[in-house]
Amino acid sequence: MAEPFFTMRWEDRHLVLVDQTKLPQEEVYLVCRDHRMVAEAIRRLAVRGAPAIGVAAAFGVVLGAEEIVRKKNDLVTGLEEVFTLLAATRPTAVNLFWALARMRKVVRAQQGSAPDQLVGALEAEALRIYQADIETNRRLGRQGAALLPDGATVLTICNAGALATVAYGTALAVIRAAVEAGKRIAVVACETRPLLQGARLTTWELKKDGIPVTLITDQTAGYLMQQGKVSAVLTGADRIAANGDVVNKIGTYTLAVLATAHDLPFYVAAPTSTIDLTQPDGKGIPIEERAAEEVTMFGGKQIAPDGVQVYNPAFDLTPARLIDAIITEEEVFWGEAGKYSLRDRLSKASN
Amino acid sequence: MAEPFFTMRWEDRHLVLVDQTKLPQEEVYLVCRDHRMVAEAIRRLAVRGAPAIGVAAAFGVVLGAEEIVRKKNDLVTGLEEVFTLLAATRPTAVNLFWALARMRKVVRAQQGSAPDQLVGALEAEALRIYQADIETNRRLGRQGAALLPDGATVLTICNAGALATVAYGTALAVIRAAVEAGKRIAVVACETRPLLQGARLTTWELKKDGIPVTLITDQTAGYLMQQGKVSAVLTGADRIAANGDVVNKIGTYTLAVLATAHDLPFYVAAPTSTIDLTQPDGKGIPIEERAAEEVTMFGGKQIAPDGVQVYNPAFDLTPARLIDAIITEEEVFWGEAGKYSLRDRLSKASN
Repeated sequence: MAEPFFTMRWEDRHLVLVDQTKLPQEEVYLVCRDHRMVAEAIRRLAVRGAPAIGVAAAFGVVLGAEEIVRKKNDLVTGLEEVFTLLAATRPTAVNLFWALARMRKVVRAQQGSAPDQLVGALEAEALRIYQADIETNRRLGRQGAALLPDGATVLTICNAGALATVAYGTALAVIRAAVEAGKRIAVVACETRPLLQGARLTTWELKKDGIPVTLITDQTAGYLMQQGKVSAVLTGADRIAANGDVVNKIGTYTLAVLATAHDLPFYVAAPTSTIDLTQPDGKGIPIEERAAEEVTMFGGKQIAPDGVQVYNPAFDLTPARLIDAIITEEEVFWGEAGKYSLRDRLSKASN
Repeated sequence: MAEPFFTMRWEDRHLVLVDQTKLPQEEVYLVCRDHRMVAEAIRRLAVRGAPAIGVAAAFGVVLGAEEIVRKKNDLVTGLEEVFTLLAATRPTAVNLFWALARMRKVVRAQQGSAPDQLVGALEAEALRIYQADIETNRRLGRQGAALLPDGATVLTICNAGALATVAYGTALAVIRAAVEAGKRIAVVACETRPLLQGARLTTWELKKDGIPVTLITDQTAGYLMQQGKVSAVLTGADRIAANGDVVNKIGTYTLAVLATAHDLPFYVAAPTSTIDLTQPDGKGIPIEERAAEEVTMFGGKQIAPDGVQVYNPAFDLTPARLIDAIITEEEVFWGEAGKYSLRDRLSKASN
């Protein structure tokens, strides 16, 4: 499948990212030369999507370590600052912490090594995370493709596509794999206020692939389902608890309630790195609240009265009972009576 | 209650309207000097909201008749053109057709009168419709106020306020009456994509009244309800069928499904002029589809890829079974086992 764009690349020991805040109007690539630039890119959503944030943060650690070594600063305190800065960028997507934990492991394993060797080991690990993301998403797509029947119209929210990962996507990986298997699939993209990742990114990606896509405002989803024009809802995830509760883009919960009311399947697609077994359920997962200006400003123009109070959570919590299946690269987990035992299943899978 | 703005006024035989497309940034008043300007104002939503459209159209007929008489054109064909132009502006809100039918009745009653007398009779009727709207909304507000308990947080969509009527509003009339009765009421305003009537108009009106209001993106409604932060949903209506099915701003149906799922009351507030007894249920009510650019453009800036397919219905259909009560100026109609017999009840009420 031709992809004339890329989400991120590691080139000449720099992290090159497409600036997603500028899409679809401009395809501009940012060159991050240090970990501060990576942290800033994550914070302001130039790179977003749970898997993509994790990979970017891993390269952020490499850049941070390389700078410490080059400047001959103290490695122990310097690396601590790098990890702290990157971990503080965004609170919800667990892939960020998962990737940083993998990088920390390398630091521990390399204790006593020469500084250059440490940097090399970190770079090798970041590249492994990068490469594994692509393969994971291809596997995840093939696992999920069977769930979408030929002729299906799949409704999705936000962007769980190539732009949310290194390539291929999570929810969109499933759609791409179904299309590659010869099925005719149409997509309905919820625009996804306030930052319009659906309108800006999902439609852009799918048009490049030639997959039919229709854009709607978020609250049109219910009316479309009422008219029988949706076959299934398929979303990504920012963090999944051990019981199958899913935290994802604000509005996902509303779609799950609507899918249940219309007897439509509701699927979540995410790599196992998005599953946080330390959370027994979704209640303890922090939900990021973002600035009021995301809602009150638009393209530099104010759209609400001065000083209006705003509630702007970036994510919401969909309870496991509303989710029919969680599609991962390992297997498709089906809820049993609305419950998932991801801890048991994942331990078995890794045996 | 101080209202330093007005939705519309009849001044020096001109219709003066606040241009709602410019709010809240600019409070600009349009002076409509002929029926074509009124039709254009309705079409481009400078005046919007079912009751306000009806009143504006009534004055449009007065302006049209006055021009025909002034130019000594043929009254019969001229008036037919005026009615046709005004009726073609928007298809869904029934108040438009209700007001035009009242004006037609005056034309019929005045057959054979002097032209000036006809214009005078039309002006008197339009002023009666204008004045009755204010009184109707006050009564409607008092009818509904008892439904909102002290301390309630009421979630609403679009703008069913003073700006959707001559004054006071429909859904917001109920909230205003509850506040006047000494209750503490907080409002959650859904921003209401694509045209943001909630963000731009409802917050603006309520802030002027000092009623606490929080702005959310539309798809945040479900998450708020899940957290127990909403007491009731209260919306306006563009057309109500005899069985209680309600056509209102796109997203209303989604809110009704969410309210049911969270066991919250769902109320609709509208004058009896919004009830269309010729429609046995909502299926036959035309749903206006508007231009793709409302979704793909924002403040002159393109936010989706070129040529993306868009589905942009302005309204949706909420079945009667999801509606707990319909608040009118005559009485509060309660659904019995999810059914309303508005035909029987309204015939009784008018006896």
